[in-house]
Amino acid sequence: MWIAELSRRTDVPVATIKYYLREGLLPPGESVGATRSRYDESHVRRLRLIRALAEAGGLSLARIRGVLTAVDEESREIHEVLGAAHSALLPDTIEATPDSLARVDRLLEDHDWQVDRESRDRALLASALDGLEKVGYHLDDDLLETYATTAQQTAEAEVAHLPSGDRQHTVETTVLLTALGGPVLLALRRLAQQNASAHRYNAVPRNCP
Amino acid sequence: MWIAELSRRTDVPVATIKYYLREGLLPPGESVGATRSRYDESHVRRLRLIRALAEAGGLSLARIRGVLTAVDEESREIHEVLGAAHSALLPDTIEATPDSLARVDRLLEDHDWQVDRESRDRALLASALDGLEKVGYHLDDDLLETYATTAQQTAEAEVAHLPSGDRQHTVETTVLLTALGGPVLLALRRLAQQNASAHRYNAVPRNCP
Repeated sequence: MWIAELSRRTDVPVATIKYYLREGLLPPGESVGATRSRYDESHVRRLRLIRALAEAGGLSLARIRGVLTAVDEESREIHEVLGAAHSALLPDTIEATPDSLARVDRLLEDHDWQVDRESRDRALLASALDGLEKVGYHLDDDLLETYATTAQQTAEAEVAHLPSGDRQHTVETTVLLTALGGPVLLALRRLAQQNASAHRYNAVPRNCP
Repeated sequence: MWIAELSRRTDVPVATIKYYLREGLLPPGESVGATRSRYDESHVRRLRLIRALAEAGGLSLARIRGVLTAVDEESREIHEVLGAAHSALLPDTIEATPDSLARVDRLLEDHDWQVDRESRDRALLASALDGLEKVGYHLDDDLLETYATTAQQTAEAEVAHLPSGDRQHTVETTVLLTALGGPVLLALRRLAQQNASAHRYNAVPRNCP
């Protein structure tokens, strides 16, 4: 397809597409003559990913470049690629106490999770636990265990639903779902909390006499 | 306890505590003589909640006031109080398409979830689904179903772990966990995604020959 159609399909202005091409965020199309290029589905997907990260994820171009660099690394194992891509979504330095980091490592070990040890998600989890401690809430082991178990079920369903096309498509879709799926999960949890509270605390439904 | 101890226990400066008292975010202590007041555990909890919402949640004082007003409404059912408190955590207007709102309503009905119909979480969920659609990702019914089921498990465990003290303590703790527990869940999900990808795509562990 020509650049006009690429723009129409992704809802990204032609000028912005040209900017992404110059900045190297979008790989060049196939040259046809001196001034025209043709683009394909991989460009559509890549543009949608950039747009998702920029608009919905609120990421800077520098950070988006980091995510895309990770996505494009073909020589690494897929979980390392995801670890690097997730890390690029996060702040450079995440502070966490050694106690919480040790707790996270025990959890990962108990569940035998195969994760990139350098992944910032590990520090982020420890830091989130610290945040709760600081306001006087200790997340106890039982509840953390339930969180880990349900996270595993969620992630397995997500991975099972990934497109079975090429590897890059798979990684791109995972990053998209990670960046934009969070609000879906958190909104569902809040609704589910209301429901669980209603069941625990109101024995009689409201519309009964 | 005197205000100095309240400050020490919550790590909130005395001047800030006095400001919250003047603004009505913190209920007054029990007067002892003309110029001194005594405070109790309810003040400790309330200050921690304010601090959590202000620092970790990044909420403005106006928004925090909205959350606390909802928390203090004793005449409403607890799921309505939670719905109102959650809503106060969210932006005033959340745009969502009628299609997504209808999809959310069907989901709530299928699961027979007892939620406040006015809760902004409902619109937020629809809006998050729209966000995915806009970048070309349709979250299919199976995956949404898994999200809802795991959210329900998570929420039931959270509610089961709430303190069984007075109602206000319960509501405060739920709001705290809602506002600060999200990062824990999302970090766990990202780690679990790495693991699930490793299992799906790398049949042989890295450290095997």
